[in-house]
Amino acid sequence: MRLPKVFKNLVNEIEKLPGVGQKSAMRLALHLVQDKDSNPLSLASALKSASNEIQYCEICGALSDDKICEICSDPNRDQGRICVVENIIDMLAIERAGFFEGVYHVLGGVVSPLDNMDENSINIQGLVDRSAKSNEIIFSLPSSVEADATFLIIKDAIKRAGYSPKFTRVAVGLAVGSNIDYADSLTLIRSFENRTEASE
Amino acid sequence: MRLPKVFKNLVNEIEKLPGVGQKSAMRLALHLVQDKDSNPLSLASALKSASNEIQYCEICGALSDDKICEICSDPNRDQGRICVVENIIDMLAIERAGFFEGVYHVLGGVVSPLDNMDENSINIQGLVDRSAKSNEIIFSLPSSVEADATFLIIKDAIKRAGYSPKFTRVAVGLAVGSNIDYADSLTLIRSFENRTEASE
Repeated sequence: MRLPKVFKNLVNEIEKLPGVGQKSAMRLALHLVQDKDSNPLSLASALKSASNEIQYCEICGALSDDKICEICSDPNRDQGRICVVENIIDMLAIERAGFFEGVYHVLGGVVSPLDNMDENSINIQGLVDRSAKSNEIIFSLPSSVEADATFLIIKDAIKRAGYSPKFTRVAVGLAVGSNIDYADSLTLIRSFENRTEASE
Repeated sequence: MRLPKVFKNLVNEIEKLPGVGQKSAMRLALHLVQDKDSNPLSLASALKSASNEIQYCEICGALSDDKICEICSDPNRDQGRICVVENIIDMLAIERAGFFEGVYHVLGGVVSPLDNMDENSINIQGLVDRSAKSNEIIFSLPSSVEADATFLIIKDAIKRAGYSPKFTRVAVGLAVGSNIDYADSLTLIRSFENRTEASE
């Protein structure tokens, strides 16, 4: 059966979204054009405004309403403590937990030759420049070979630039409330290696 | 953290899609505005054209480029054999299998008081009118109480209108290649009830 061209076009566009296969794309497209309670035009206009109006903070690279985001311009936040994250989703997760009082630096990825991501694809230079005025740079990157390499590259670049902030990495270990027998071996090994003193 | 208004608006719109939760909506929105290989504007324009230009066949209710869809206007298809389906997705599945040579009638739902769907919410009248010229009406509806009720309502309406096509329903039984021990009891019962003669 030949589907209408405008409909096929919509299915193709939806299929480009991550995690959406051909069948889901078809279902979503049908929902959008058919269901009474769906509004494809308001989704279309939301996409258009987001695409045209969204800005990124010139300092940290997060989504922002202005040139500088509210975190980077907040005098109550410790501007000398920078938390390095891979992407904005990780930053939002840390913000949701609501404990961190420093600022962020969004890399926009990690160095990964297999994905065509080299040192120039991510925002390393901005972090090097910022590290001049920082006391501590906390790396909150995932546990992966790529993230480890990215950490070393950034540390190196900052040292070569002549700055010497304190470098820290978030702890790897068992999640709160998790069972030891469900933890993978690597996590278990790291949780032993990074054990903390418990006397007193 | 206060997210930009245009971004929050986009997340809200994406979250309205069926099967998309808050986290997925956030991820999809970030992908759309951030990833180099995503194009939110082409998705927006696809949504707009689909919403403005899509038509439904005046006879069967399927998606169509013209007033009458290519199946209803195809002289090679048996216009006297109508397959009744709940929605366009089911119709596409039957078309994909490529064996059916009749035409379709898309109800747009089944009668379901719990979902506020009564006899007037679905396209029953169109089917009653078409049944004047039909030899057989094949009900390819899901196995559910609502679909069974819908079948009875439609059969009744057609008979009251004075038409007497042959009514058939697709067989319920074991799927091809499935294991008997994985089949649910109800399917197993129906497959015994509907057993076919195998002599010769």
